[in-house]
Amino acid sequence: MTAELLDGRATSAKIREEVTAEVEQLKAEHGVVPGLATVLVGEDPASKSYVGMKEKQCRQAGMHAVGVHLPEDIGQADLLAELAKLNANPEIHGILLQLPLPEHLDEDQALSAIALEKDVDGFHPVNIARLTLQGVEPTFVPCMPLGCVELLDRYGVLIKGREAVVLGTSNIVGLPTAMLLLHRGATLTICHPHTEDLGGTSRRADILVAAIDQPRMVKSDWVKPGAAVIDVGWSRVKDETAEGGYRVVGNVDFDEVLDVAGHVTPVPGGTGPMTIAVLLQNTLLSARRSVGAA
Amino acid sequence: MTAELLDGRATSAKIREEVTAEVEQLKAEHGVVPGLATVLVGEDPASKSYVGMKEKQCRQAGMHAVGVHLPEDIGQADLLAELAKLNANPEIHGILLQLPLPEHLDEDQALSAIALEKDVDGFHPVNIARLTLQGVEPTFVPCMPLGCVELLDRYGVLIKGREAVVLGTSNIVGLPTAMLLLHRGATLTICHPHTEDLGGTSRRADILVAAIDQPRMVKSDWVKPGAAVIDVGWSRVKDETAEGGYRVVGNVDFDEVLDVAGHVTPVPGGTGPMTIAVLLQNTLLSARRSVGAA
Repeated sequence: MTAELLDGRATSAKIREEVTAEVEQLKAEHGVVPGLATVLVGEDPASKSYVGMKEKQCRQAGMHAVGVHLPEDIGQADLLAELAKLNANPEIHGILLQLPLPEHLDEDQALSAIALEKDVDGFHPVNIARLTLQGVEPTFVPCMPLGCVELLDRYGVLIKGREAVVLGTSNIVGLPTAMLLLHRGATLTICHPHTEDLGGTSRRADILVAAIDQPRMVKSDWVKPGAAVIDVGWSRVKDETAEGGYRVVGNVDFDEVLDVAGHVTPVPGGTGPMTIAVLLQNTLLSARRSVGAA
Repeated sequence: MTAELLDGRATSAKIREEVTAEVEQLKAEHGVVPGLATVLVGEDPASKSYVGMKEKQCRQAGMHAVGVHLPEDIGQADLLAELAKLNANPEIHGILLQLPLPEHLDEDQALSAIALEKDVDGFHPVNIARLTLQGVEPTFVPCMPLGCVELLDRYGVLIKGREAVVLGTSNIVGLPTAMLLLHRGATLTICHPHTEDLGGTSRRADILVAAIDQPRMVKSDWVKPGAAVIDVGWSRVKDETAEGGYRVVGNVDFDEVLDVAGHVTPVPGGTGPMTIAVLLQNTLLSARRSVGAA
């Protein structure tokens, strides 16, 4: 058995095409251009690169993108003032505060200062609470988890009534992905760093999400035959046969798991590109709502 | 094998004694009397009875209790104004808005209007978000989940590294209890109404929480030998042999499960009394914090 690839590169390209067409239509019918503001504090190279990709893909889809780049040593009050300006700016429909913030800033308070209707990254505490509870919908769902579920949906992988296991309890991926899968009707298991039998627990999963930040930790004997395996990891490991001496791998031992799983995401080209594609979807949705067209 | 009872009645009496002594000490050392305000909208008899019990136990512990009883047809703005008054009242350290509210009121908005430092019931969205995420502590944890975990702790039932299964996804009990157990280090499974094999999933549990609102649904073959079983259910079922023709039962078939479990809560006398006892603890904690003594 060889697993079908959950091809995030091809799927995200398809989503970007869809978004581009809908942006065009929204402009024509309502005269509004969806606008995203990315807010970056400091000079972290990875964060700079992510923010750059987000802006570029926004513009390619015909959207308006503003990059607000703030100094590493900005004070909390000044950061909140920048967010307030973006909240009040009618050209901006989505505000993405790139995390993590420098240590001296209060992340919780900054995320709370983003207007709920512009919280396209879904990390406002009220949105996290709504994602946790039943019967209340977040204004937006965080992009990485939403991208994972969108990928499952587009490949026809059923969630309702199936066993989902999430490895990892990060605030950015593990926990919100878990809540999203639960509310989509899965029987949900979340493994904690204290979980003793990670492999045995993983093997229960019809849908396994690996978000533990451990290169190639998920081996074939952790995977139930036919399961869908979503790899959220991203690490560079030494590989003398690769160009530059390094290779990018995920949390899943891809080559091994390919023979057991029903579906598996490659790394790179799996969940990564999906994250930005659903950010565009969320920003478009926000712009639609702003003119009563959602 | 006969399970040890997780005796909520005896344990809550012990907690109330502890709280009473600490209230006395706080008065003597800091001149502050912990104060709880309960806010009840309408005439629901069950809600009236719960609120009455909470007030009574507060007073018995030497605390100040104010019952704010609002008419069924109160408007949202007037409800918010009442909450604002309590937020500003220095004699009140805890505000408990009795749920559910009448349909015409916005529960989410009302809960958000309670000052975080007085949210002793823990249902402010920011507290729910903090309960979900790691690395951020809620100001208070909801009382029913906290009471369950307190009961496990007082009987020495380990949580860390063990399998916890929660049956039920209610906002009041199932979901917050699940998040609490996860962050205490359990491998956590939450069953959804779409879960097919409830019994088989339950049987994995070292700690099983039944919060599905189905009288005596959890049978002995749902329980792993030696597991701790927490029953959050409360129903009146017909029983001609009982006084009045009715008997109160939980979600667990107590008589059957007693022979299999390691620990089990009785109903009544299990989680119910614990809920009010930890509400007193939370209110005391809030009063301590108000004078810098926590």
